[in-house]
Amino acid sequence: MKIAVAQLNYHVGNFEGNLKKMLNAIDEAKMQQADIICFAELATVGYPPRDFLEFEDFVLKAEQTITHLAQAAQDIAIVVGSIEKNTSGKGKPLYNAAYFLAEGKIQYVQHKALLPTYDIFDEYRYFEPARTFQVVHYKGKKIALTICEDLWNLGQENPLYTICPMDELMPQSPDFMINIAASPFSYKQATARINVLKANINRYKIPLFYVNQCGAQTEILFDGGSIAMSPDGTIFEELPYFKPALRVYDLEKVRQGGQHFEQKKEKIQLIHDALIMGLQNYFEKLGLKKVILGLSGGIDSAVVAVLAATALGKNNVRVLLMPSQFSSDHSVQDARILAENLGIQYDIIPIENIYKAYETTLQPHFWATEFGLTEENLQSRARGMLLMAFSNKFGHILLNTSNKSEMAVGYGTLYGDMCGGLSVIGDLYKTEVYELARYMNQQKTIIPERTITKPPSAELRPDQKDSDSLPEYDVLDKILYQYIEERQGPQEIIDMGFEEALVKKVLRLVNINEFKRHQTAPVLRVSTKAFGMGRRMPIVAKYLV
Amino acid sequence: MKIAVAQLNYHVGNFEGNLKKMLNAIDEAKMQQADIICFAELATVGYPPRDFLEFEDFVLKAEQTITHLAQAAQDIAIVVGSIEKNTSGKGKPLYNAAYFLAEGKIQYVQHKALLPTYDIFDEYRYFEPARTFQVVHYKGKKIALTICEDLWNLGQENPLYTICPMDELMPQSPDFMINIAASPFSYKQATARINVLKANINRYKIPLFYVNQCGAQTEILFDGGSIAMSPDGTIFEELPYFKPALRVYDLEKVRQGGQHFEQKKEKIQLIHDALIMGLQNYFEKLGLKKVILGLSGGIDSAVVAVLAATALGKNNVRVLLMPSQFSSDHSVQDARILAENLGIQYDIIPIENIYKAYETTLQPHFWATEFGLTEENLQSRARGMLLMAFSNKFGHILLNTSNKSEMAVGYGTLYGDMCGGLSVIGDLYKTEVYELARYMNQQKTIIPERTITKPPSAELRPDQKDSDSLPEYDVLDKILYQYIEERQGPQEIIDMGFEEALVKKVLRLVNINEFKRHQTAPVLRVSTKAFGMGRRMPIVAKYLV
Repeated sequence: MKIAVAQLNYHVGNFEGNLKKMLNAIDEAKMQQADIICFAELATVGYPPRDFLEFEDFVLKAEQTITHLAQAAQDIAIVVGSIEKNTSGKGKPLYNAAYFLAEGKIQYVQHKALLPTYDIFDEYRYFEPARTFQVVHYKGKKIALTICEDLWNLGQENPLYTICPMDELMPQSPDFMINIAASPFSYKQATARINVLKANINRYKIPLFYVNQCGAQTEILFDGGSIAMSPDGTIFEELPYFKPALRVYDLEKVRQGGQHFEQKKEKIQLIHDALIMGLQNYFEKLGLKKVILGLSGGIDSAVVAVLAATALGKNNVRVLLMPSQFSSDHSVQDARILAENLGIQYDIIPIENIYKAYETTLQPHFWATEFGLTEENLQSRARGMLLMAFSNKFGHILLNTSNKSEMAVGYGTLYGDMCGGLSVIGDLYKTEVYELARYMNQQKTIIPERTITKPPSAELRPDQKDSDSLPEYDVLDKILYQYIEERQGPQEIIDMGFEEALVKKVLRLVNINEFKRHQTAPVLRVSTKAFGMGRRMPIVAKYLV
Repeated sequence: MKIAVAQLNYHVGNFEGNLKKMLNAIDEAKMQQADIICFAELATVGYPPRDFLEFEDFVLKAEQTITHLAQAAQDIAIVVGSIEKNTSGKGKPLYNAAYFLAEGKIQYVQHKALLPTYDIFDEYRYFEPARTFQVVHYKGKKIALTICEDLWNLGQENPLYTICPMDELMPQSPDFMINIAASPFSYKQATARINVLKANINRYKIPLFYVNQCGAQTEILFDGGSIAMSPDGTIFEELPYFKPALRVYDLEKVRQGGQHFEQKKEKIQLIHDALIMGLQNYFEKLGLKKVILGLSGGIDSAVVAVLAATALGKNNVRVLLMPSQFSSDHSVQDARILAENLGIQYDIIPIENIYKAYETTLQPHFWATEFGLTEENLQSRARGMLLMAFSNKFGHILLNTSNKSEMAVGYGTLYGDMCGGLSVIGDLYKTEVYELARYMNQQKTIIPERTITKPPSAELRPDQKDSDSLPEYDVLDKILYQYIEERQGPQEIIDMGFEEALVKKVLRLVNINEFKRHQTAPVLRVSTKAFGMGRRMPIVAKYLV
């Protein structure tokens, strides 16, 4: 028996586009004599469809896509993720379902049992869990069909769930497993995934075909990395990260094993490639091409510019250099060198006249006050407005260049440097931004060395440095990581050896700046806990503040 | 037996403050000889605590609050909502729990069974549902203790759930019911709530004490309206809306009935009072006082200014009138009259010089282009920047004045009129904003009549009217209501008699402007479906666009 694993890039709500991609893959799989082709979880609708699932019309279009696919299931069987209505009258209105299509018809539908409802996941908002489990009989084989999280309560070690679908299916003696997934990327995910799949194999000792999707859905990135695994727990083949792929496997060969192909999992490279895909998909899927950003001479905008040029092509990236009286000479120079290294269009637009116009207009009201945060923010906002003017005039989308450290502690100006349609590096701590910059400079120096080595500064007042108001980033980032990714409280972090006053100050800054993060662009997610839909915090609260 | 219903205003994460309020209420109830005092759902932590629930330290503080309250349960029993750890090793880590405290100890803990996971609710993200149900024995009475949604699957008519807690409890012959709730306001909610409670009474025929909370938690408004209901389904007493209250009831009197006190439920008055509370609580709970907004002479900013002056006092409200060359004379005049009617500080700051500075700065880049959206947005953004400068300089928080209609179709400028820390009327369609304005003018004319009667205009280019680019609001709002509140698809709305092209245009506008709403302030929620945490839509999608 030959099994095709189709790792495709779907698009939420794009029923026609998703169907077309699947039909093409079916043709290709047939040419390669596949008996079964497997697509990912919710392939018809894209993942996550979110509240579109509450629309009858949306559900209907998913059903129509399944009807189309069923018609294409001639001389090949199709495993595909979609939604199914819950007609029982009890429980949530839909199921997250794996359809088994063959001979022009729906042969079987297996519902998902374990519905992730944490971090970015809201599955129990929409779906009723599976209550029954059955293997699929096809061409003399028995197939155990599961959906993503269904494999993540192995032997019931996962405290979140009370059922283990494979334990339910094993008494029916399946010959192999198919797991269709929509498993989002984080730089730790590929390793975590492989560990879980191996643990399943160790327990059940039958071949596994794991089909993930690739591509970005706004901030959620899917890395692909689909896997055929032999019964001895060896990875027969891991499919590429971050791009579509189709492979046809001979079941017997996978069962016999003796082949091992797995990809490197280096943190910064994974993050780099994930961000490139995130940028590309955001624009492709919106039908857009061109971006703009402000280049300050600092590390954050430099890294975003390199990512944008790599992802979208140098002709689609335009930058503005907007010096003020507080900009150091080397900043403009470094920004210009970078733009020239990348071959992207740049304009130098001093903000002095605009800043002065604000100053003159506000003078009657502010005359008795001193230069301070207001005036710093005005510079940042003047830049934001200029960038948005270019964006509106020429159709370039503004890329946000905030990093996770500054987003965390509120070291950014709302409606100023926090502007932008997409936050590219908002899930990278400052220390990770430096790592990424060095990675980019490995082959040749693209980002000027001085941008990497000089002390970070917002340059909004004379001789300003980030370290005037913040702890050094190597300490700050460690505290933030414990609080954000690891959900450690103040005492736990202090017990790790950090200074009490510093820990309390940092946690307070994170909490009182929730209102700023509420108004920022979606952040491409590369960590296990990004700002955005996966981290839901009250704004008006009084906890650790 | 005497039962005290304590309808209090809690604050998320403010353990000390919440405890203090409850201790005061306990003293008061004891003075009135109450045998039991009842507080609301999650009273110790405030509702919704959101992802703070993932912090061990937060859970610990809730446990400590319960310990304190248990010590106070001397000569009185306490029913109070909090969280409890799930120590079973299976399922979600916490329970949403009702504690029964008496004689200095925790006597019983009833978990919540029906966990709302839709709209603004994420309860299954954190909580494991109850599996067992037991009445509480106290002073010879048996009490059926339930939590909020637990009463909302009466006779299992609610398709969302598969269990009915009261059906489980009735075989134990309870004498009365206590339901502790955190039931958020919408202008339809008080009526819906009473209908559900009556249906419970009709089925179980025992007295009911329903304890809601009041107050705002960021965008979520709790209206109170706690209820003592007699076994014949009559409302013995409904507690006030939008403010704290404590009542002590004689169980026998409530059982006998013969008293009926219920409040008026007029949509616009409810919305008005809800918004006032929302504004007050947002600022009180953040420890802030002063607000600023731009007054254009139009209806939206006028209504927000009146709400702010009513909620916060005229001395805490400051407005800027920022005319451009496109502002009509009457706009400035109307804005000035309103400011004078309200007695609030106003300044007139023409934006001409700032606008010209942008024009001059951009001229070398824009010289071949025509006046258009870019230039309109620049005016709106110059105003936003001025308001934010005042906000930064003097500590006034900027109020956003966008309405739901324009937020829906993207008729607003990101980083311009969409700025602000809190959206006051972002859940009111334009037609509802007019209704609210007329309501405000009932006693005497506060908002100039011309502000209400003139055709709405953004005044960003000569002779502009909203109706140049949008359908008339009375049609637009009806389509939006069907799409947003009622989740009707295009065909269903067309079938109601709306023009096909118009429906498709409006739905497309809503969907392609998701990115703008992603970056707006929290919106005070008054409808059954507000923009924000209760409506979760993909940004990069291709559905109805």
